Amino acid sequence: MDYIKNPETIEKMSFVIIDDQVKADYGGYPTENQIEKAILRRVIHTSADFDYLDNLHISKGFIDRTLKAIKKGLTIITDTNMAYSGINKKVLEKMGCQIRCYISEDETARYASEAGITRSMASVIRAAEEAGPKLYVFGNAPTALFKTLEIYEKKDENLIGIIGVPVGFVGAAESKEVLMTSNIPSITARGRKGGSNVAAAIVNAILYEADHRYG
Amino acid sequence: MDYIKNPETIEKMSFVIIDDQVKADYGGYPTENQIEKAILRRVIHTSADFDYLDNLHISKGFIDRTLKAIKKGLTIITDTNMAYSGINKKVLEKMGCQIRCYISEDETARYASEAGITRSMASVIRAAEEAGPKLYVFGNAPTALFKTLEIYEKKDENLIGIIGVPVGFVGAAESKEVLMTSNIPSITARGRKGGSNVAAAIVNAILYEADHRYG
Repeated sequence: MDYIKNPETIEKMSFVIIDDQVKADYGGYPTENQIEKAILRRVIHTSADFDYLDNLHISKGFIDRTLKAIKKGLTIITDTNMAYSGINKKVLEKMGCQIRCYISEDETARYASEAGITRSMASVIRAAEEAGPKLYVFGNAPTALFKTLEIYEKKDENLIGIIGVPVGFVGAAESKEVLMTSNIPSITARGRKGGSNVAAAIVNAILYEADHRYG
Repeated sequence: MDYIKNPETIEKMSFVIIDDQVKADYGGYPTENQIEKAILRRVIHTSADFDYLDNLHISKGFIDRTLKAIKKGLTIITDTNMAYSGINKKVLEKMGCQIRCYISEDETARYASEAGITRSMASVIRAAEEAGPKLYVFGNAPTALFKTLEIYEKKDENLIGIIGVPVGFVGAAESKEVLMTSNIPSITARGRKGGSNVAAAIVNAILYEADHRYG
């Protein structure tokens, strides 16, 4: 069988195809900002879904704030092991950043059981108790996103921002609306769509930009 | 904030909403088979994308063959750590099955470097060298799917089947067409869409049915 085998070639060709189709069928990207375009490109690449041209919402100042925090070193908190797995750990380590997913830890199960809450909620409570700047990344659990919004109702300089793109039919769209209308710097996707793959793609696009600037 | 916190309730409500929308907007599921419906329901649940009603292709006999093999104990091979992470390991262990992802192993990097091939391709070559029944699961890498199709051009009773749903713009649709028109028992998705989340959702739907029958 004859097929292209080089992953870098495949990725570059994919981006050319995506840019071409965005131009031809959607009148171009909805932004002139190169980093925002890179985020959209990676989200479409991981989902093959051009709906994100309409759905994705990047709050003003989120990218600059997050890039600066990455330069200083932050901790990424993910809601699922899937989102955790999709994030480029090599670049993350190179930038001196950390990543943590609490969901499968025994201490989280114990905390959830004692408090009578879900492990997703226990995860973000545990995360918030730790010191240092944090970027929360949610691809799956609206309950985790809701709980995080409750925790950070009062401003906290350790909260760098939230990438909140839970997918689903119950609570997902609502949780993202609350995030989008809050004062918290965020990236989110209107409606039901999203997912761990989308969450990881957004993080990677920002990490690659950080690596390009400061790496 | 007021929101539904119980994950089981969220899942059950989501399935009710999905079934309702499938009936109202798409004239029902394209199959009467309950397991096929369960697979479609979970794929829509993980993607919020009803295109899979049209896209998903389940080859005749795949489900029975895979359920029987799960009962006897098989090994699932995933192309990415994301797909690996999304598969329910508790049910998998309960059924006496194994799961393996070779992509990040040092031996795979060494093999790929020496042979001048990608790690995705080296992964499936290494997997095929091991004994025992195998179910391949691809959500990301068309090169891994193409290579697996090459490896199994001759019939091999250790190949139970392939869940091949790589997402993407270069090679993904083509690799899935080759899979779909092969004699290998398979589940695939026509076109560009798919992903690690979709792959994991399909595996989980089948695992839950196996657990229901034999657990």
